[in-house]
Amino acid sequence: MTVERLLPTDDARDLLDLTTELADRELAPKAADCEARGEFPRDVLRTLGRAGLLGLPYPEECGGAAQPYEVYLQVIEILASRWLAIAEAVSVHTLSCFPVAAYGSEQQRKLLPDMLGGDLLGAYCLSEPQGGSDAAALTTRATRDGDDYVVSGTKAWITHAGHADFYNVFCRTGGPGPRGISCLLADARTPGLEPQAPERLMGLRSSAPAQVAFDDARVPADRLVGAEGQGFAIAMAALDGGRLGIAACAVGLAQAALDYAVAYARERRQFGAPIIDHQGLGFLLADMATQVSAARALYLSAARLRDAGRPYATQAAQAKLFATDAAMRVTTDAVQVLGGYGYSADHPVERYMREAKVLQIVEGTNQIQRLVISRALARG
Amino acid sequence: MTVERLLPTDDARDLLDLTTELADRELAPKAADCEARGEFPRDVLRTLGRAGLLGLPYPEECGGAAQPYEVYLQVIEILASRWLAIAEAVSVHTLSCFPVAAYGSEQQRKLLPDMLGGDLLGAYCLSEPQGGSDAAALTTRATRDGDDYVVSGTKAWITHAGHADFYNVFCRTGGPGPRGISCLLADARTPGLEPQAPERLMGLRSSAPAQVAFDDARVPADRLVGAEGQGFAIAMAALDGGRLGIAACAVGLAQAALDYAVAYARERRQFGAPIIDHQGLGFLLADMATQVSAARALYLSAARLRDAGRPYATQAAQAKLFATDAAMRVTTDAVQVLGGYGYSADHPVERYMREAKVLQIVEGTNQIQRLVISRALARG
Amino acid sequence: MTVERLLPTDDARDLLDLTTELADRELAPKAADCEARGEFPRDVLRTLGRAGLLGLPYPEECGGAAQPYEVYLQVIEILASRWLAIAEAVSVHTLSCFPVAAYGSEQQRKLLPDMLGGDLLGAYCLSEPQGGSDAAALTTRATRDGDDYVVSGTKAWITHAGHADFYNVFCRTGGPGPRGISCLLADARTPGLEPQAPERLMGLRSSAPAQVAFDDARVPADRLVGAEGQGFAIAMAALDGGRLGIAACAVGLAQAALDYAVAYARERRQFGAPIIDHQGLGFLLADMATQVSAARALYLSAARLRDAGRPYATQAAQAKLFATDAAMRVTTDAVQVLGGYGYSADHPVERYMREAKVLQIVEGTNQIQRLVISRALARG
Amino acid sequence: MTVERLLPTDDARDLLDLTTELADRELAPKAADCEARGEFPRDVLRTLGRAGLLGLPYPEECGGAAQPYEVYLQVIEILASRWLAIAEAVSVHTLSCFPVAAYGSEQQRKLLPDMLGGDLLGAYCLSEPQGGSDAAALTTRATRDGDDYVVSGTKAWITHAGHADFYNVFCRTGGPGPRGISCLLADARTPGLEPQAPERLMGLRSSAPAQVAFDDARVPADRLVGAEGQGFAIAMAALDGGRLGIAACAVGLAQAALDYAVAYARERRQFGAPIIDHQGLGFLLADMATQVSAARALYLSAARLRDAGRPYATQAAQAKLFATDAAMRVTTDAVQVLGGYGYSADHPVERYMREAKVLQIVEGTNQIQRLVISRALARG
Repeated sequence: MTVERLLPTDDARDLLDLTTELADRELAPKAADCEARGEFPRDVLRTLGRAGLLGLPYPEECGGAAQPYEVYLQVIEILASRWLAIAEAVSVHTLSCFPVAAYGSEQQRKLLPDMLGGDLLGAYCLSEPQGGSDAAALTTRATRDGDDYVVSGTKAWITHAGHADFYNVFCRTGGPGPRGISCLLADARTPGLEPQAPERLMGLRSSAPAQVAFDDARVPADRLVGAEGQGFAIAMAALDGGRLGIAACAVGLAQAALDYAVAYARERRQFGAPIIDHQGLGFLLADMATQVSAARALYLSAARLRDAGRPYATQAAQAKLFATDAAMRVTTDAVQVLGGYGYSADHPVERYMREAKVLQIVEGTNQIQRLVISRALARG
Repeated sequence: MTVERLLPTDDARDLLDLTTELADRELAPKAADCEARGEFPRDVLRTLGRAGLLGLPYPEECGGAAQPYEVYLQVIEILASRWLAIAEAVSVHTLSCFPVAAYGSEQQRKLLPDMLGGDLLGAYCLSEPQGGSDAAALTTRATRDGDDYVVSGTKAWITHAGHADFYNVFCRTGGPGPRGISCLLADARTPGLEPQAPERLMGLRSSAPAQVAFDDARVPADRLVGAEGQGFAIAMAALDGGRLGIAACAVGLAQAALDYAVAYARERRQFGAPIIDHQGLGFLLADMATQVSAARALYLSAARLRDAGRPYATQAAQAKLFATDAAMRVTTDAVQVLGGYGYSADHPVERYMREAKVLQIVEGTNQIQRLVISRALARG
Repeated sequence: MTVERLLPTDDARDLLDLTTELADRELAPKAADCEARGEFPRDVLRTLGRAGLLGLPYPEECGGAAQPYEVYLQVIEILASRWLAIAEAVSVHTLSCFPVAAYGSEQQRKLLPDMLGGDLLGAYCLSEPQGGSDAAALTTRATRDGDDYVVSGTKAWITHAGHADFYNVFCRTGGPGPRGISCLLADARTPGLEPQAPERLMGLRSSAPAQVAFDDARVPADRLVGAEGQGFAIAMAALDGGRLGIAACAVGLAQAALDYAVAYARERRQFGAPIIDHQGLGFLLADMATQVSAARALYLSAARLRDAGRPYATQAAQAKLFATDAAMRVTTDAVQVLGGYGYSADHPVERYMREAKVLQIVEGTNQIQRLVISRALARG
Repeated sequence: MTVERLLPTDDARDLLDLTTELADRELAPKAADCEARGEFPRDVLRTLGRAGLLGLPYPEECGGAAQPYEVYLQVIEILASRWLAIAEAVSVHTLSCFPVAAYGSEQQRKLLPDMLGGDLLGAYCLSEPQGGSDAAALTTRATRDGDDYVVSGTKAWITHAGHADFYNVFCRTGGPGPRGISCLLADARTPGLEPQAPERLMGLRSSAPAQVAFDDARVPADRLVGAEGQGFAIAMAALDGGRLGIAACAVGLAQAALDYAVAYARERRQFGAPIIDHQGLGFLLADMATQVSAARALYLSAARLRDAGRPYATQAAQAKLFATDAAMRVTTDAVQVLGGYGYSADHPVERYMREAKVLQIVEGTNQIQRLVISRALARG
């Protein structure tokens, strides 16, 4: 089914049409193969950069497209419906530009055109092996030494590790707790910054994250983003937007699974009729479609709050939680609709199901989202 | 928590503020008592009519307020959060005005100001005892006799039966199937039109539906709405809007349950802390809040499609399905949050739970919604 | 559908047949009416007592029937399928006999024949208004004064309050925490023991619990059950069996709802066929039946562990959690199967749904069950 | 946690201990590697055969171990907890011996000792590419020609294709519908019987099924099992037991996932405590454990009905449905408990999740199980 979208401007309509066209031509034909071979699609990201899709929500004066989040996220959604890894890469890259765009010095902001244009790919180093969900407990240390910070420690689950040109590194410059954390913008060529072997994952293999080891890596002090001790606040502010990016990824993935399952169920006949005409399957597909619609409506609602300058952190957490749970359920059921065929690599739905799982985990597990939401409720 | 609402106009903001104020003053204090006694609140509906809340989505030239569905439905939602029966009455009344407003003759439309102003309360007679979900099989017959239709048969589950001033009666004027059905606008005082005793229900007792018996009731032929045979099409067109009304009711009810449960969980202490601070309860509340947000976003999304003149029937069915399932779950869990206290009439959540169930049934059971959605998927 | 039951003995088969016959004759015809009027069925309990159903799992030497829990619980299940309040009363009464049967002095045990024969009805006073789930924090105090304990405080949610002949009162004789708690067996006629007005509940109205106020109530010291400080251990040991009783209640109630819904769905026709033949309804009923079967299998599995002298506390908590969640879901869906008719008091399913909710709350809320299970997992 | 099992005999206890010991030694160390490489473990099956585990539920006189299904299935469960593919292979092999054991001629039964001893591995050819769920519509044709049947057609999703020594082939010898189907026992070396390339699956890669093409394959007429036209009845009778085998596989797999998640959650610390002590995770694990217990209790209940000679087909369908849905949910949540680590091949839970999905599909999709159950309800 065509998704009915109400868009704020004709420009937005054109942008989504362009995205769809690009995604059909550049993403869809390559996805299955790249995922099977675990090959990072740097060239595809370059193409998206040239098309202007890597800096969408940022102001035009620094090289962005000044699109509202409402529109940016639908671009993400459309990309995800053709190739999740690309959409997630765009979301992570966009997130990686946030610290400089929102808190960067004049000099740091000179990098923005190359970042937003996609010449420089970004990574975002927050998680650590021991401190998955408890980000405020991070232990990577940055010690001031002359004009540099000397960074030591290990970051984990870093998307674009080994491919990125710049790394946002959240590290401890002060005492324990959130106030001791700062954000450094490290160049990929920094000696002592060592991306490790990529993780062997159930899905998203074309863009597998990796650990990044910092071994007395010297980052110039003028690469401190914002002030010392401001790092955790930056990380959290970036995460709200990042969560909406993941929600949009989840909706795109679920829509792809739904569309594939519906098309199959209209063709496949059992007991004398297309299986979609048997209520047992038809009602399942109706529930799947309803989940996808609700998830889309929820992330768009949160995005419009953000675009209107209203508080949206709680709704962003809800959108991430709901959309990714929906994607897990919808993709699992899409396999079921195809039966044995769905379990085979001859059809994409088994890949969708493997990919969906990661979305319940990244940018804060869904348990962390529930914590964020329940704390907001407790505050009233 | 205050619900963050993005509204299209300042007028809409004023209207919702007025509604909230009215609901707090006129609805909230009376709800529990009227429900316990099963007393129909005709006076409250009159008050709403005088405040202009009974004709919101209709054009100003016939006495309406020309509000988009997006705004009208949020009025319904706010009313439902204070007293479900009133919100459902407003939704049903608004639905009852639809046939005349959309298909009525010049002469019939002269009734609209009194209908939309609330002086004339409406009822909508579609269901029958044997044909709950299969409306096209209805058997109430209207036979032309001179200048009248003579109507015989029994309608079931009629909201406002015995209180309404006019009844939309869907009856068979031709052969079997949807094309043999017409819509008559019958005056409540019509001889032979006999409302029966109200149903004894689990909830919504202040506005219990009843059967309406038609025993050679003569309705003037100029009270035929639209053409002969157009009745089923009218009924279905009205239902799409009616489903959104029920979705908005469900969101309001669920929000009320959530708010009550959150307030309780912030006060109630067990094991040395407010129970909302125990993740076991906090995560449950987070899931409830997420369901409510998703349901609201979904009905608003469908409403905006309608307001934009885009197809919205499938999304309306999804919104009705999702929102009412969410309301059932959220109200049941709200009772759980209060434990034994929640099971007692000393707190309103047990009533919310009883009331939620009816929403999964009316305006097409949720099974019928799934049928509507799956058929849309099958058509592609 | 007839439930296929494998029973350990022919005696057990006879006992279940007797129970079924008694339940059909004495319970089923009175349930709806007594529930509507909120009338406690003391006479029905006397009939059950005379039939030997009030002391089933206790040894014959003290007046019991020496039935294994596996059989006793199926009696409870069958009673619950005809009238939940009676089954719950039997479960609570059986629980109330446990402290004396397992820990009582010679003299106290002389009461057992009258207790197990049903001449003396029991109550179990553990919960308090402030300490619902946190039983170890109870504050009702018993102070030794000569040959008596003087008891002051308030107990809450006491089944049989005002009807019981004896009350197990868990109260604080020592310092804070579980070790300061003792169990007293108070006679109903004790001055200062004052049952309060019954709670106004959503369901189970024929056997509504009430608070019991203790105002310097003097209980003879020889009515201390077990040793001082042993009360919490007694309460917890009794609860494991009590939880299985509630699980069996839930299965009986859910079975009744399923049977009613299936019978209706075989008769009711829509779209040209019995609605059970439409997969949309048929699959829903299949899921309901599966939940009931799984719940029954789980409580029987726990009961057999108990009968074999093996650890069963964790499985009892699982059975209570699973069976009551299943009953809530199955009864809610049973209403849905009947549509509008299900929402009406003309059919029993709306009552089943109202009754199911209490089962998720009593004998430890389902959140407490999850706590019990997760702690067992944490211990390994 | 150790699973508490009540077993009917000491022999059964010994058998389960032997199975556990064998599974720990021969299965667990090889599973991950064989699955990664997609290598069929023929040698492991031979080891199990020598240990007597390939003919457990068959009479001793034909080489079986005369174990009740209750015990046989717990062997399957334990094997599945160490390596799903092996357990499923044992279940399929056992199923493949059923037609000969139950319906075979004297001469055919002479093969049983080698079949049940594991020297001859079996396959079961029922499904076809076009007729997944609608087995009665199968089109593979067997035409009598002299002393042979000449078989043509294609079977799909055949476990052990290419590895089996004998194939049960369900084919059409008569007219359309179930009564035109017969069962042939074909030798693997039959000319014209051609196993195709194995399917490329999401999981269960060490034992991937394949299509088997029959191209004028001549099967001696004395290899007809039972009578002509009896094939469908044989297939259905075998399936009831096969479904219990899959249910036991699902429970073993889910138990493995639960155990791994619990062990991880007891070690992994976040926010200052083991994550199992945070209710958000602890309650999730409690729900997982409860699902596993209920699934086990349900399949054992069905097995005991079978062992007692009572009708059990409906409970078998319920057990298959419930246990495999539970396994899908529990394995997906086990990945969640480990967070990013769970998504990585460094831990087995991602494999468990991929494997669980196939269980919802094989031996009748869970939609077919619901159909079986709803038809039983409709018959009453």
